[in-house]
Amino acid sequence: MRDHVLGASHIHTTWNRDHSPALTVQPGDQVTFDTMDASGGAVARRVASGELAAPDGLRALIEQDAYPVLAGPRGHPLTGPVYVEGVEPGDTLVIDILEVRTSAWGWTGCRPDGIGLLDAALAEEGLQPYTHFWDLREGTHAQFGPGVRVPLTPFPGVVGVALAEPGDHATSPPRHVGGNMDIRQLVAGSTLYLPVEVPGALLSVGDLHAAQGDGELSGTGIEMAGQLTVRLGVERSAGLTTPEFITPTSGGASGRWQATSGHHPDLMTAARIALRALLRRIQARGFTLEEAYVLASVCVDLKISQVVDAPNYTVSAFLPLDIFVDQ
Amino acid sequence: MRDHVLGASHIHTTWNRDHSPALTVQPGDQVTFDTMDASGGAVARRVASGELAAPDGLRALIEQDAYPVLAGPRGHPLTGPVYVEGVEPGDTLVIDILEVRTSAWGWTGCRPDGIGLLDAALAEEGLQPYTHFWDLREGTHAQFGPGVRVPLTPFPGVVGVALAEPGDHATSPPRHVGGNMDIRQLVAGSTLYLPVEVPGALLSVGDLHAAQGDGELSGTGIEMAGQLTVRLGVERSAGLTTPEFITPTSGGASGRWQATSGHHPDLMTAARIALRALLRRIQARGFTLEEAYVLASVCVDLKISQVVDAPNYTVSAFLPLDIFVDQ
Repeated sequence: MRDHVLGASHIHTTWNRDHSPALTVQPGDQVTFDTMDASGGAVARRVASGELAAPDGLRALIEQDAYPVLAGPRGHPLTGPVYVEGVEPGDTLVIDILEVRTSAWGWTGCRPDGIGLLDAALAEEGLQPYTHFWDLREGTHAQFGPGVRVPLTPFPGVVGVALAEPGDHATSPPRHVGGNMDIRQLVAGSTLYLPVEVPGALLSVGDLHAAQGDGELSGTGIEMAGQLTVRLGVERSAGLTTPEFITPTSGGASGRWQATSGHHPDLMTAARIALRALLRRIQARGFTLEEAYVLASVCVDLKISQVVDAPNYTVSAFLPLDIFVDQ
Repeated sequence: MRDHVLGASHIHTTWNRDHSPALTVQPGDQVTFDTMDASGGAVARRVASGELAAPDGLRALIEQDAYPVLAGPRGHPLTGPVYVEGVEPGDTLVIDILEVRTSAWGWTGCRPDGIGLLDAALAEEGLQPYTHFWDLREGTHAQFGPGVRVPLTPFPGVVGVALAEPGDHATSPPRHVGGNMDIRQLVAGSTLYLPVEVPGALLSVGDLHAAQGDGELSGTGIEMAGQLTVRLGVERSAGLTTPEFITPTSGGASGRWQATSGHHPDLMTAARIALRALLRRIQARGFTLEEAYVLASVCVDLKISQVVDAPNYTVSAFLPLDIFVDQ
């Protein structure tokens, strides 16, 4: 059993079975990955150049992460791949998530033409590009503004192994071999199981989030660089067809929640109805549309209430009222 | 402020603005509704006739609820409607859910040609009609079998007000005025807000569930008769467009969870992938396909992990491992 460290210089921005392994390990070994934030330093470069304003207390920290522009295709900067000796196609890669260390700062953004659930609808209401910077140094919570504290539950947005199919594959869509799953319950203490399609599995990770709601509604969580430590194992011929995991949290918590429900034959539309109504509740507390959208992205949970009452199915959006410390 | 009781003789099985009020109340009044189970006594009648087998200790209790066949269209038997004086279209009806009292017994079913999320797929694997009976008299938990205890979190599956559009409307689909929403977080201590479309709002309730996961996967929770007590209020011209609520629980809990994730451009398909994989994990513990499906329906939660990583979106299914008391 050995401990390895893989620096953030071992970056690739596509999934490809022909990427050379950055590290070869044995089952049972631990690996600590240094990761870049999802923008590959682009947000920090925009702060360094003065294009984006950042809070005074964070600017110097942010500028330290203004890495040079990455070569190669655009995509999530992923650290890896790690070749696990003796692991073969048909096996299951077992990934114990031991620790997720946050950076000193993070960012959450929205834009009228991005990937967020309501970008198109909110663009018609005048949604502007907006980037919120978070100070993560306190460790357990991050302040959104006066009276709003968001609990930090760091996890890796991307954990995946190489596809059998040759060639470059985009990092954005998650697939049956994992990848950009953005499952917020993959916190330290979780174990993730991924189906292996190539010898050695070729594990890569990245896109750490300090917090995110179920849904990642504006398209970003609290995006950050950071460190992820995992222990790797293998199960033989387990016949896995999709990612599975064990987690110490389902994401819920006690406290009071404000929620909205959308009813529609299409679940995505039902989710949009629920979120739009909930954003109005956040705006009614004095937040701008952009602030409401970004805040929702890091702490509002989308749950599927029912998928059986045809022709309308129900998605509910839950806002934890505990984040409002004056309540 | 008065307390009213509305017996289960005041049943209707459609939404219709022309149903005569069974009760007229003032804002601030409390109402206790006696409710029939979703089958309107049909499950109990099948036990009484010997068509369905029930556990010895429950048979006599079940037979007490073998109500006569309801007249009128098939639909959820709803108790009501309640006319709230002074409430007008454009207002919001405020429903404080004060208490949800369980029956002595409940049932959960599956069939190969029903409304469940995986009925068609599981029919190909030989899924048989199956009804599980639960003894609810302990109050906090119900035993599924040796070693499996499901926590009870009773709530009304249907809470709704009449639509402005005249005529009979089916009870099955939930709508912007509520109805068969099957939102499991509407437990005692919640407050539900519904947009009012007709004078008096015309509130009806029914289809109580002793437990259900987010999704109601096989199409039924723990279905039961019971009693629901609410306090009614009104907010003027609040401009509500979809149901909203405050709840003391998001449904999550501490403990360990076993989970699976599905990735697909269609959220419903992603949910099916996740559930199918999770059912295999339950079956691997020694349960039949039918038992696994029914157990999932009452305690597996579907969450939307992300709706932004096109072209694949992610639904994860969460099984609380705490229900296995041997773990």
